[in-house]
Amino acid sequence: MKGLFITLEGPDGSGKSTIARLLADYLKEKGYDVVTTREPGGTKISEDIRDIILDTNNTNMSYVTEALLYAASRAQHVSQKIRPAIESGKVIICERFVLSSLVYQGIARGLGIEKVKEINDFAIQGINPDLILFFDIPPDVALKRKTKKNQGDRLEREKLEFHKKVYEGYLSLIDIYKEKINLIDATKTKHNTFQQVKVALDNLLEKSKEE
Amino acid sequence: MKGLFITLEGPDGSGKSTIARLLADYLKEKGYDVVTTREPGGTKISEDIRDIILDTNNTNMSYVTEALLYAASRAQHVSQKIRPAIESGKVIICERFVLSSLVYQGIARGLGIEKVKEINDFAIQGINPDLILFFDIPPDVALKRKTKKNQGDRLEREKLEFHKKVYEGYLSLIDIYKEKINLIDATKTKHNTFQQVKVALDNLLEKSKEE
Repeated sequence: MKGLFITLEGPDGSGKSTIARLLADYLKEKGYDVVTTREPGGTKISEDIRDIILDTNNTNMSYVTEALLYAASRAQHVSQKIRPAIESGKVIICERFVLSSLVYQGIARGLGIEKVKEINDFAIQGINPDLILFFDIPPDVALKRKTKKNQGDRLEREKLEFHKKVYEGYLSLIDIYKEKINLIDATKTKHNTFQQVKVALDNLLEKSKEE
Repeated sequence: MKGLFITLEGPDGSGKSTIARLLADYLKEKGYDVVTTREPGGTKISEDIRDIILDTNNTNMSYVTEALLYAASRAQHVSQKIRPAIESGKVIICERFVLSSLVYQGIARGLGIEKVKEINDFAIQGINPDLILFFDIPPDVALKRKTKKNQGDRLEREKLEFHKKVYEGYLSLIDIYKEKINLIDATKTKHNTFQQVKVALDNLLEKSKEE
């Protein structure tokens, strides 16, 4: 059997990590061989690249450089980890993938969706998700959650503006990817959110058996 | 005055570094403000990226990752060093630029010229050289020069094959870029080679005055 590639997308604080764990457990119980991973990162080289992106000394990094580094990190992740896992029949659950770059670099940084998609198409070499779960939550609600967790964090007006841009960016992409994207209402309880994910997943498993 | 951007291209051992120095001195004597630089590198972030590319532990780096990292390194070099220098009226002399990626990643690594050009067009954001000097020298001659310098080096059959591919790659690109490329016969003496470069350069300076 060919493996399955599932990505989780959505703003910070939308609950991706929590649901990724529940999803992995659920699939393991069903007998699937599951790999969980996340971006940016996932391999040693990808982590090295991530370190350059996140290095606080690199304040003068251009947005174009940043977008190419995310794509490079993803290219290695795909070639070394995701593609081999798919080819050996595993289920890969990955937090963030191309959609995050389209939103953060393409829209929020203003580089343009088309250009960022172009370099990412090169990076992924045909490895696209079978299912994209988009965790839909308004930015003010998501940020309140984040703040609750990290008491030290203080929200600035500017930050909220950026997160609004990201959220609207995601919504504008849903139309383009509608065949693969499942909208998950992430404002609900963990239990309710996971129930929605299970419905989307069971549909996918059903379909992949038919193929 | 808008600055000038000159790149030096050609196989290893074709004499680019030597001529770059002579060229810089010649232009400084004429009163130009000159910046010499080289790729991969040229800025702190570009050097950090270069370190990942050249790290001998990273043997499993995919060719796609490598191509994106070169492009990322170049993007930073352009935005932080080359573009500002051009805008402040300087003459920039740069060893290796986009053509090197087209040859090494596009042709020798087999990723395809079009794809590699696409990500590099994104990286350079419209900053193209005014003059490309291609140092034309057959790979066996170039490698002999290199070996002479570093007595420890031993040529392997495999290595020569790769360098032949690179050389043929360069030749095949000259047609595409013929308006900007000046062919320099690099098998001649240093003096003779530099004379050829001076002719190409004086033409460019003449033209740029007319504009």
